[in-house]
Amino acid sequence: MAAYRNLDKTEAYKALMQHKEPPRLDAILDAARVRACEVPMGGGLAFNWAASPVDAPRLELLRRLAAEQELVAKFRLLASGELMNTGEKRLVLHHLARGALVGPVFRDGRNLGAFYEGERRKIAEFAKAVHDGVIRGSSGKVFTTVVQVGIGGSDLGPRALYLALERWAKAERRFKMAARFISNVDPDDADAVLSQIDPAASLFILVSKSGTTQETLANETLVRSRLAALGLDPDKHIAAVTSETSPLANNPAYVASFYMDDYIGGRYSSTSAVGGAILSLALGPETFAELLAGAHEEDLLALEPELEKNPALLDALIGLYERNALGWPATAVLPYAEPLSRFPAHLQQLDMESNGKRVNRDGEPVAYATGPLVFGEPGTNGQHSFYQLLHQGTDIVPLQFIGFRENQISDDVETEDSTSRAKLNANLAAQIVAFAAGKGDANRNKDFPGGRASTLIRGERLDARALGALLAHYENKVMFQGFAWNLNSFDQEGVQLGKVLAKKVLAGVDSASAGVEGALGAYAELLGLEA
Amino acid sequence: MAAYRNLDKTEAYKALMQHKEPPRLDAILDAARVRACEVPMGGGLAFNWAASPVDAPRLELLRRLAAEQELVAKFRLLASGELMNTGEKRLVLHHLARGALVGPVFRDGRNLGAFYEGERRKIAEFAKAVHDGVIRGSSGKVFTTVVQVGIGGSDLGPRALYLALERWAKAERRFKMAARFISNVDPDDADAVLSQIDPAASLFILVSKSGTTQETLANETLVRSRLAALGLDPDKHIAAVTSETSPLANNPAYVASFYMDDYIGGRYSSTSAVGGAILSLALGPETFAELLAGAHEEDLLALEPELEKNPALLDALIGLYERNALGWPATAVLPYAEPLSRFPAHLQQLDMESNGKRVNRDGEPVAYATGPLVFGEPGTNGQHSFYQLLHQGTDIVPLQFIGFRENQISDDVETEDSTSRAKLNANLAAQIVAFAAGKGDANRNKDFPGGRASTLIRGERLDARALGALLAHYENKVMFQGFAWNLNSFDQEGVQLGKVLAKKVLAGVDSASAGVEGALGAYAELLGLEA
Repeated sequence: MAAYRNLDKTEAYKALMQHKEPPRLDAILDAARVRACEVPMGGGLAFNWAASPVDAPRLELLRRLAAEQELVAKFRLLASGELMNTGEKRLVLHHLARGALVGPVFRDGRNLGAFYEGERRKIAEFAKAVHDGVIRGSSGKVFTTVVQVGIGGSDLGPRALYLALERWAKAERRFKMAARFISNVDPDDADAVLSQIDPAASLFILVSKSGTTQETLANETLVRSRLAALGLDPDKHIAAVTSETSPLANNPAYVASFYMDDYIGGRYSSTSAVGGAILSLALGPETFAELLAGAHEEDLLALEPELEKNPALLDALIGLYERNALGWPATAVLPYAEPLSRFPAHLQQLDMESNGKRVNRDGEPVAYATGPLVFGEPGTNGQHSFYQLLHQGTDIVPLQFIGFRENQISDDVETEDSTSRAKLNANLAAQIVAFAAGKGDANRNKDFPGGRASTLIRGERLDARALGALLAHYENKVMFQGFAWNLNSFDQEGVQLGKVLAKKVLAGVDSASAGVEGALGAYAELLGLEA
Repeated sequence: MAAYRNLDKTEAYKALMQHKEPPRLDAILDAARVRACEVPMGGGLAFNWAASPVDAPRLELLRRLAAEQELVAKFRLLASGELMNTGEKRLVLHHLARGALVGPVFRDGRNLGAFYEGERRKIAEFAKAVHDGVIRGSSGKVFTTVVQVGIGGSDLGPRALYLALERWAKAERRFKMAARFISNVDPDDADAVLSQIDPAASLFILVSKSGTTQETLANETLVRSRLAALGLDPDKHIAAVTSETSPLANNPAYVASFYMDDYIGGRYSSTSAVGGAILSLALGPETFAELLAGAHEEDLLALEPELEKNPALLDALIGLYERNALGWPATAVLPYAEPLSRFPAHLQQLDMESNGKRVNRDGEPVAYATGPLVFGEPGTNGQHSFYQLLHQGTDIVPLQFIGFRENQISDDVETEDSTSRAKLNANLAAQIVAFAAGKGDANRNKDFPGGRASTLIRGERLDARALGALLAHYENKVMFQGFAWNLNSFDQEGVQLGKVLAKKVLAGVDSASAGVEGALGAYAELLGLEA
């Protein structure tokens, strides 16, 4: 059991709100603090919070908030099968897909951990059969490409993870099949992908938990018609990842079906079959297993009751202090690793769709800020793009850096007496300090105010284990923030109104109608839709 | 001549700040307003501001602000060769690269418009020679791939434009060479690209105005060593785009050199040789010429003194009202067109690097908000990602939609009685209205507050001309906002401090030093750099 209260009903919050100014970062940041503010993570990673606006007094208040809102206890409840998704009345079990944390979870007589593990094994066997050429395309060609067809949570996480490990897998001789992704209903998306592959040697994975995702079904039709036009049998080229109750389940139109359930939400589903199928096929089941192991290692750390040893909890509360007390409405994720180029886009969904809510878990409006805006691009590129505003703009944006000591692949080049990796990481170190401390200059145009806080997740090398730990860290950070804000981080009602209105437009809206309905019709006409 | 004053010294600003609440969008939005709020643009585009929080009284105040800050007059001055980049004491002439607006511009006896046009012609001739196989790789292979090596403004704009037209060019039989982009100093970036191409058939374009960009030179060394290792002569595989005074100019190490000057800043350089070389080589000189024509058409519209007929000016002032009076710190660019997938990343640089400033054009601190945060992803994907927060989060983010009536390529598929394009655009129309008007629900979790303002740029089809117009619209919007805020939108001092500190780190920083310097050394150690 736990007590659920809004953030502003806690004593710790009231105390935190007495600290609406951050400490001077240039006054507290030194080598000793950098070394002291390290928290080990899984997968060879470490979380460093030295440049965050949290000193000893503020840390103590965050500790009190974690205790008052029973944050770790609520994670235990969630992991044990408590109905945490209050909006949709569902369990929340994405952690279970990578390992039990507090014991098995049963629902309607089914051991859910065993179910997820069973699907993972089915996928591994299927992947082996595909890799061995036992399962082939309808024209007899071996499958060399795998294409995920899905949108949102069925797209962004798996895509980011694939891109993060593609080159590594090749270097490690784990690479099996090239992966591609079709997501948008804009037919130019599918068309571009289809033009890059050999359909006869391509296996498509249709990912839709409900089996009714409009964009995905439209793309499926497009893919099927292209395959048929080439004389291929689509039923032999498409596998499905869906729920057991969906129209796609146990359907002879699919060469295989892998299942997920309602207890794993789209944006949390990368470690389920949603990510498992494509990652196992493209990079090998062992790679996916290592990703899960890294994620599980990180989940265990999130059960740690001591704040300074729980990286996701600490990261979450630092972010909450920045959002609610310091009033910073956005945060940027800046990975100094090109393979993580689409990871910020996944985190953008994970964070904004989970905690971009104005009501609490009981549907009551809250009187405080919740989920921040999240964006980001890899470094060093961002330095040459938007860092200008981050350094010298009129708003402060706290930053979440990610970096690795080693390249993913071995080759490097030395120019001006340093390797490219050294340049990359020198820039990362420099930016952290430049943002935090700034530098005064009599020429105000060259003056850097500093005070731009940041955190750093640092690893040895970006491999599957590290990536799994990274992914789980953010999933758990977002979860803890949601608990602290007393939200339900696991539904997404915000998608509904647009769906309803889009259906209306497709059915035909009369622009002669009054008010907003007429506007809807007028926009539809401007965009070429018939009334 | 024009007078330059801070925004808060204008009467119009003071009047605008009496309107810190927006009008109720669900009260003003109807079919008549949608039709009335259309402003024609170039390239077959139109700007629609019906869902913006600007009614007749507010529009009148924006009109007064435009007049008081002499926004169009300042554009005329800029276009005529006034020293508008006050920070670096330079002219600002990116418009001239696509056509003279108010007459020729001379500097040190040189006709600059003729210079830019001359480079464009040189590029067109070079591209023809490459396409005809007259200029080949050192092993005799015809060049089939062109790889841009550059970062920031030398990367994001050209990359976004190439991606936007790649499929269209193929459908139009304009496609000549595949384009790739190497940007990050992380060697995993170059490695990934090099693994996808045939170096013997690849031409590299080294883009660095100064000739000293650290990341780009490191990547050049990497590329050269790979070419040499394959027995190829790098000097025959690399062209340079640089300034005439750079070390790369007139250098026998390059098969050709194309020039830009200090009057076109990186983020404004897509219509100069920076974009011209790769786009002409990949998609043909005619395609680049059409892009320029569309941009020029849009520039001419930006000279229009009447606010309601000047789309960039109107867009700029709506954004300023949202930023300064309504206090909305961010904005999202949401193109409902998959080919525009990286366009928001380019606009993120264009906007944030131009106007993310806290001092005015004379280096004096300003007391008001300036450039907003900018982010975005294509639709419909964003609906399944971060729109949750945009609809129901605790902050309001105004939106900039982009849509097209037709697909870029002809194939489509019908499912559930509608084409995919119809679904895409139905969703776009639906989202505009859902954001603006919301929908009440007794279940607060399903309640949509509305009041989320937006604008829409709409076109027939995304071709080269439309893309040029779109690009120029945003360049001019950012320029007008910069004038209104009394900033210098054309320098970027924010990149300097990081550069200085990175150099320090590479030279070796002692973590035993006190304070921030020691922190720098400690971070460097954590990231694997030797002291």
